Amino acid sequence: MTPPLSAEQCRTLDSTDPVRHWRESFEIPDSVIYLDGNSLGPMPRATPARLEQAIRQEWGQGLIRSWNTAGWVDKPATVGAAIAPLIGARASEVVCADSTSLNLFKVLAAALNMRPARKVIVSEIGNFPTDLYIAQGLSRLLDQGHELRLVERDAIPAAIDESVAVVMLTQVDYRTGSRLDMADLTRQAHDAGAVMIWDLAHSAGAIPVDLNACHADFAIGCGYKYLNGGPGAPAFVFVAEHHAESFTQPLSGWMGHAAPFDFDPAYRPAPGIARYLCGTPPMLSMIALQCGVDIMAAAVREHGMQVLHDKACALIDLFINTVTAGGNPHGLTLLTPAASHERGSQASFSLADGDQAYAVVQALIARGVIGDFRAPNILRFGFAPLYLSYTEVHQAALTMREVLDERSWDSPSFLTRQAVT
Amino acid sequence: MTPPLSAEQCRTLDSTDPVRHWRESFEIPDSVIYLDGNSLGPMPRATPARLEQAIRQEWGQGLIRSWNTAGWVDKPATVGAAIAPLIGARASEVVCADSTSLNLFKVLAAALNMRPARKVIVSEIGNFPTDLYIAQGLSRLLDQGHELRLVERDAIPAAIDESVAVVMLTQVDYRTGSRLDMADLTRQAHDAGAVMIWDLAHSAGAIPVDLNACHADFAIGCGYKYLNGGPGAPAFVFVAEHHAESFTQPLSGWMGHAAPFDFDPAYRPAPGIARYLCGTPPMLSMIALQCGVDIMAAAVREHGMQVLHDKACALIDLFINTVTAGGNPHGLTLLTPAASHERGSQASFSLADGDQAYAVVQALIARGVIGDFRAPNILRFGFAPLYLSYTEVHQAALTMREVLDERSWDSPSFLTRQAVT
Repeated sequence: MTPPLSAEQCRTLDSTDPVRHWRESFEIPDSVIYLDGNSLGPMPRATPARLEQAIRQEWGQGLIRSWNTAGWVDKPATVGAAIAPLIGARASEVVCADSTSLNLFKVLAAALNMRPARKVIVSEIGNFPTDLYIAQGLSRLLDQGHELRLVERDAIPAAIDESVAVVMLTQVDYRTGSRLDMADLTRQAHDAGAVMIWDLAHSAGAIPVDLNACHADFAIGCGYKYLNGGPGAPAFVFVAEHHAESFTQPLSGWMGHAAPFDFDPAYRPAPGIARYLCGTPPMLSMIALQCGVDIMAAAVREHGMQVLHDKACALIDLFINTVTAGGNPHGLTLLTPAASHERGSQASFSLADGDQAYAVVQALIARGVIGDFRAPNILRFGFAPLYLSYTEVHQAALTMREVLDERSWDSPSFLTRQAVT
Repeated sequence: MTPPLSAEQCRTLDSTDPVRHWRESFEIPDSVIYLDGNSLGPMPRATPARLEQAIRQEWGQGLIRSWNTAGWVDKPATVGAAIAPLIGARASEVVCADSTSLNLFKVLAAALNMRPARKVIVSEIGNFPTDLYIAQGLSRLLDQGHELRLVERDAIPAAIDESVAVVMLTQVDYRTGSRLDMADLTRQAHDAGAVMIWDLAHSAGAIPVDLNACHADFAIGCGYKYLNGGPGAPAFVFVAEHHAESFTQPLSGWMGHAAPFDFDPAYRPAPGIARYLCGTPPMLSMIALQCGVDIMAAAVREHGMQVLHDKACALIDLFINTVTAGGNPHGLTLLTPAASHERGSQASFSLADGDQAYAVVQALIARGVIGDFRAPNILRFGFAPLYLSYTEVHQAALTMREVLDERSWDSPSFLTRQAVT
């Protein structure tokens, strides 16, 4: 095991960190060490002024004209194009719209339509539940006897056989931070004749992703985590260029029509990825998303995603090593893989007692270290390289040790559970 | 025909208008007479400060905690409850989510599921196209031989027979402003054993609507028109209380789960209307919507919707009478019904030549009178009683006469069409 770093060593790392200037792009309260950017990214400093312009000028003064003059009508494509280089996609293959759940419904319906004779959807039992709920909702609606074959992570390859229409996986596990091998699993799906859908909710803006190098068919992802797009920011959808025009999706609203303003009673899908739009997009949330995406895209242009992820991994290692430096008297189980290329941008522990795990997270939040609890018994911490320093992460780990050592979490005020996303 | 009013008579009407103080709640540029609130309502003056608080404080300082501490998680229900009295619904019957198109997909799927032996969906050929596209998308996906029976407005009653599963109508026609009789058509649908879905896009916040008195089953509507919720504001969905728990909808995302934070792999619908939620809602756009809804709800509490609609009708009559006061040498055809109870909150004309109709609207916009063009040949003007004065409407009508008389629209710069929503 690596010896933990001292506070001084952390200060030295910070002073030579090539990424540290991006911290200035984000507003983070002084009282907080924010290890929850994997749930809701913090506010970019540029966002309030940009939104004020969008509200007061574009909406307030421009009114309806801003759909054209302020480029609102193009935002789903513009923001999608800005996300594309973060995930190894062409600009024309990504569009922003709706939510991750809804985008999954679209691509899953399109994918099942590509394999009408097959009735199995493979996913992981521990996939983020909304993905499973959407597959259940679509299967029930279709009423064609689809089977949702849910297996443990290790059993995914064995579950992919020639009965499988679609393999639908989230690359980085939302609880453990464990990463799936995108290239390998996509190849296995294709070898079996199945279509591959990747959920990049915990990948986009967090780790190097190269959808086209992996020959991915479809992908979806989230705007409000590592893309820092704001609460409930619109999501994105990727469709490989060679699929884009072959299939339609069933949520065929007017913004995905070839000529929305012809007001033709018959639906004709727009060329390319635009057919994955549905209704009128929530423009204020879309513009906030653009602010977040622009920062991430600029940082990736400057450093490359690998450099950013390397820093995240160094922060993760620092956190884990510091938390467990005095042995592990409190029975923490580390859920996150040790190897950098097998993990996302988070570290997770479990405790045997779920109530204790919940209460420890609450006690940490009370001391300004914001992570989150995930049922049934997981303590989850996200490490976003653009705005976290080594010193902060070191301090957060020491605070966690204090909380555990003092059993200060063992108070009724920390044991009443509330929902948090 | 009523003689047109003079400018002085309009000033007198304004000075005694009981509704006029609501104008102070909206920001409208001095250079503009805004007759397009039926496309995008103007910005409430309270919105920028409220959004700044949501962005800088709730997101910027509160971060993930604001899902609970700022009530974000409850907003879909809170804003839905505020809309309920505007449409004759109980607070527990309305929720805000997604777009109008997506909400139609949800309720249409639920409604078809209530009548599995019937295969006909009745709608109007002139319905707003996205409604028809959604019905087409769902029918194609179901692949159960559903027929989308599209008829002209007058032929709707005759089209409702015992083969019909669902009647799906927009109450106020987006082009002509003609209003359907909700009580009568709902009764006809029910008499034939069909389920009734109302699209209230041009009704909510515009005319008195009493869904429960009409025994409506399902309704959907738009947040960015008469509710002044901002560009692409989330939409709403109404489900009558006696249906809410009987059926699920297929866009079954995690926010509609009975216990989203249990992270159960199996979907269990939330009790009541909450099951019509899908993914994480776009919170900034949702909060902007709340600002608009709060104003409309307060105005309706103070005056009642009938008083507001009566003013709108007086504005519509003023506009029509003034435009056509000198005869009708330019061949305008009035499309909007003369009787108040047969119309929404807009006035529409057509011209034989669609390019001319388009160019006239552009010439009006160039002179600060903002209405909109609707293909193929319609000039459409919305009359929102909360922020329009008689004097403005009179001036707008005189400007339209000028534009027509001078043929000032007949210039190439006004003839190049651009998409506008």
